[in-house]
Amino acid sequence: MGAGHYVKMVHNGIEYGDMQLICEAYNLMKHGLGMSAGEMHEVFAEWNRGELDSYLIEITRDILAKKDDDGAPLVDKILDTAGQKGTGKWTVINSQDLGIPITLMAEAVYARCVSALKDERVFASSRLDGPHPALSEIAADAAKKQAFIADVKSALYASKIVSYAQGYMLMRAAAKEYGWNLNYGGIALMWRGGCIIRSRFLGKIKAAFDKDSALSNLLLDDYFREEIRKAQPGWRNVVAQAALKGIPAPAFSTALAFFDQYRSAVLPANLLQAQRDYFGAHTYERIDKPRGEFFHTNWTGKGGTTASTTYNV
Amino acid sequence: MGAGHYVKMVHNGIEYGDMQLICEAYNLMKHGLGMSAGEMHEVFAEWNRGELDSYLIEITRDILAKKDDDGAPLVDKILDTAGQKGTGKWTVINSQDLGIPITLMAEAVYARCVSALKDERVFASSRLDGPHPALSEIAADAAKKQAFIADVKSALYASKIVSYAQGYMLMRAAAKEYGWNLNYGGIALMWRGGCIIRSRFLGKIKAAFDKDSALSNLLLDDYFREEIRKAQPGWRNVVAQAALKGIPAPAFSTALAFFDQYRSAVLPANLLQAQRDYFGAHTYERIDKPRGEFFHTNWTGKGGTTASTTYNV
Repeated sequence: MGAGHYVKMVHNGIEYGDMQLICEAYNLMKHGLGMSAGEMHEVFAEWNRGELDSYLIEITRDILAKKDDDGAPLVDKILDTAGQKGTGKWTVINSQDLGIPITLMAEAVYARCVSALKDERVFASSRLDGPHPALSEIAADAAKKQAFIADVKSALYASKIVSYAQGYMLMRAAAKEYGWNLNYGGIALMWRGGCIIRSRFLGKIKAAFDKDSALSNLLLDDYFREEIRKAQPGWRNVVAQAALKGIPAPAFSTALAFFDQYRSAVLPANLLQAQRDYFGAHTYERIDKPRGEFFHTNWTGKGGTTASTTYNV
Repeated sequence: MGAGHYVKMVHNGIEYGDMQLICEAYNLMKHGLGMSAGEMHEVFAEWNRGELDSYLIEITRDILAKKDDDGAPLVDKILDTAGQKGTGKWTVINSQDLGIPITLMAEAVYARCVSALKDERVFASSRLDGPHPALSEIAADAAKKQAFIADVKSALYASKIVSYAQGYMLMRAAAKEYGWNLNYGGIALMWRGGCIIRSRFLGKIKAAFDKDSALSNLLLDDYFREEIRKAQPGWRNVVAQAALKGIPAPAFSTALAFFDQYRSAVLPANLLQAQRDYFGAHTYERIDKPRGEFFHTNWTGKGGTTASTTYNV
């Protein structure tokens, strides 16, 4: 695969993510707030006038306004089983090979897989209890409802920033692995030119790379840092409410978990390395020794390792 | 790859998940509740006497008690950058090919990737603000603290059930795809025999398949349904608190999001199919028509499709 095809593949992975994010926003408004397609049409119309201005938000606005022959919203008549043509999957597979955590695209691809299990889900819905999904108290109060819709917008926007940051991490790793010289700002400009993910947002990415062509991660750009900072309270609230009320928001959630991992100077992988050293003598590095110096501990005090080596990971 | 190797690969993927779940529980207690390694040693010792009784919980208990030469907990001296040997990644890649959502294993593999970005994380931690991770109010009250530790246990346990359910979904799909006749209860029994994921839990999986060898999903088994029902409030609370306080819990979160997707009779993929039909004429099925009958709408009323076909997903 050449660089051009690779960049197109990542575009498509990002597109899977963008579509999933819109679906999660729609689902929270529909099931959480009990909103009609017509009401959501207004919300997406408003969102399309701001920083989310994009082709996919625009067509969502139009889809929500489209009526079936009987005058009911057409979107409500469509079966909820998504198909896919494979490019999202290729992106995820490549990310596993390169070791780059594009968690949002992976959730988006998997969400399509779950959607395809329609009969299983219908059966499971009658067997697996959970909280009632309605955010009734919020939906009943006009001011709270507007505030929650704004939070959903924040969740979508912040998650989208994370998704693009992950996509750019992947392209950067690929460029290094395959020896390509990629123009990251130019890619944003190209995607802005007529692709399905075209958006005002891509102009901000272009600007970030114009300002610093060596930018290591979009999350560290001043503009996006500030946008995420502002969006955080709403984003966190939506993910928490979704968890408490049982409304699935896998992409919003994984984006937040990634953001919180990425900004953690210390993660719990020290324990994981201890486990790997315990059962497989995989050794570990220490915080008080130079990087690249490896240690092994006889954890049991009994000598030897304690598990078969064929099952080491 | 033969069936035996495949089953071993899935074992290793599940092992990645189990280790990540333990790390998230540890991280929540350490950063959220401010607990020491010694205190957490006691918690894991207690957990190992109940339904979480397993080799990995047991060695975690022992690791947390291990002292360095200076008498301080050794685990606190270990660098938080995880390595991997590739089997988790192969499982995830295969799941993408088979279209099976093993979301928890994917997050576990990606979490190792994020852990490896140590220098980037240290830098990002100084640039990306978030809430203070301490659950101070909970940590300061003995009863609330014990209740939260119990919730963390519930989160770990319920997420583990989801992870194994996903692993079994994958094996079932692989058996179908590759023409294997797998003995699912026998696999649980084999894994119980000396592997790193050996646990009391696997006995319950064996029992589930003994009761119903055609069981389509572990989540639908009466025993596991009841266990998840009981664990749900704590699990949801932990995921919500983690989101609000900025303590990353990617595996707990994705397990919950998967559970909530799986038990949703209706997901928002109807909107996604509308989008795909809008920009790529991919067609859709309708809830009021037989499955397998496909429809296309001219959404814009202008005739023709509205985007290039090369970017369709």
